[in-house]
Amino acid sequence: MRVLGIDPGLSRCGYGCLDAGSAGGRGARAVAVGVLRTPVDAPTPHRLAELQRELRMLIQELQPDAVAVEKVFFQANVRTAIGVAQASGLALAEAVNAGVTVAEYTPNQVKEAVAGWGGAGKEEVGRMVQALLRLEVPLKPADAADAAALALCHLAHAPRLARVAAAGGGR
Amino acid sequence: MRVLGIDPGLSRCGYGCLDAGSAGGRGARAVAVGVLRTPVDAPTPHRLAELQRELRMLIQELQPDAVAVEKVFFQANVRTAIGVAQASGLALAEAVNAGVTVAEYTPNQVKEAVAGWGGAGKEEVGRMVQALLRLEVPLKPADAADAAALALCHLAHAPRLARVAAAGGGR
Repeated sequence: MRVLGIDPGLSRCGYGCLDAGSAGGRGARAVAVGVLRTPVDAPTPHRLAELQRELRMLIQELQPDAVAVEKVFFQANVRTAIGVAQASGLALAEAVNAGVTVAEYTPNQVKEAVAGWGGAGKEEVGRMVQALLRLEVPLKPADAADAAALALCHLAHAPRLARVAAAGGGR
Repeated sequence: MRVLGIDPGLSRCGYGCLDAGSAGGRGARAVAVGVLRTPVDAPTPHRLAELQRELRMLIQELQPDAVAVEKVFFQANVRTAIGVAQASGLALAEAVNAGVTVAEYTPNQVKEAVAGWGGAGKEEVGRMVQALLRLEVPLKPADAADAAALALCHLAHAPRLARVAAAGGGR
């Protein structure tokens, strides 16, 4: 199974595409990891349009079986939050309209799946992503590492989701 | 000039498409007014995907010269605000990627343009939309009337925007 994690954002939208190894995310392999950026000085509608085109190309190129997107919450910085929500809307709509399974995970679910507890810090998550993907150096920038963590979170949840679906209890 | 106003929302996304009359929105004619709805019990990614497809079809069918979208602010209801921001992101990206001019207006700008002052209430705006479009009854539901008001706001601003662009001061 190939999972594309997306950490939505307007200035920096992280992505991390992994191929599954054994169950639980162990043995997963990084296929493509990076950050989509849009110019800070461009009007918001044009930045969103560019991000939409890039997300569409990314999904077309990578052909993931599933897309995992960070669930949006409202933080202290409201101006940033609007861009994050707008970017997440694009990612979710593009994935569904490409026929790909979509899942949303909260930051705490991601931390718990990758580092073992929901209170883990950014650096701890980054080190676990590095270890799980057997990388020599940590993924940079943080948005790319967060996106890879989202994909690892989905791989950890996927066996349970498959069982639920097989039992007819899933949507 | 044909303007499509969009009042973004996940449960109800209002649209109002007007053809311009004389300058300032007077004499404008309603071409299509309504509300796009997505099922409340469907998962958010599927609702966003459906809204994206419907917005795309709407823009393709109506071929507006400009799309006017309500600028998102964060209100008391954070859960609704996320859906509104996600829906606005889709509308802005679809419009730009369809090659259409896009403008965002705050609720106060819309009230001022349509009712003459930024403190106008929903009913007052509804009555002014009805009067400006010479309709026998007010537009229902409110989301459709708000979308038509956005289009009227753009028509009121358009002559000034055109002058700014001609003077090389626009973007």
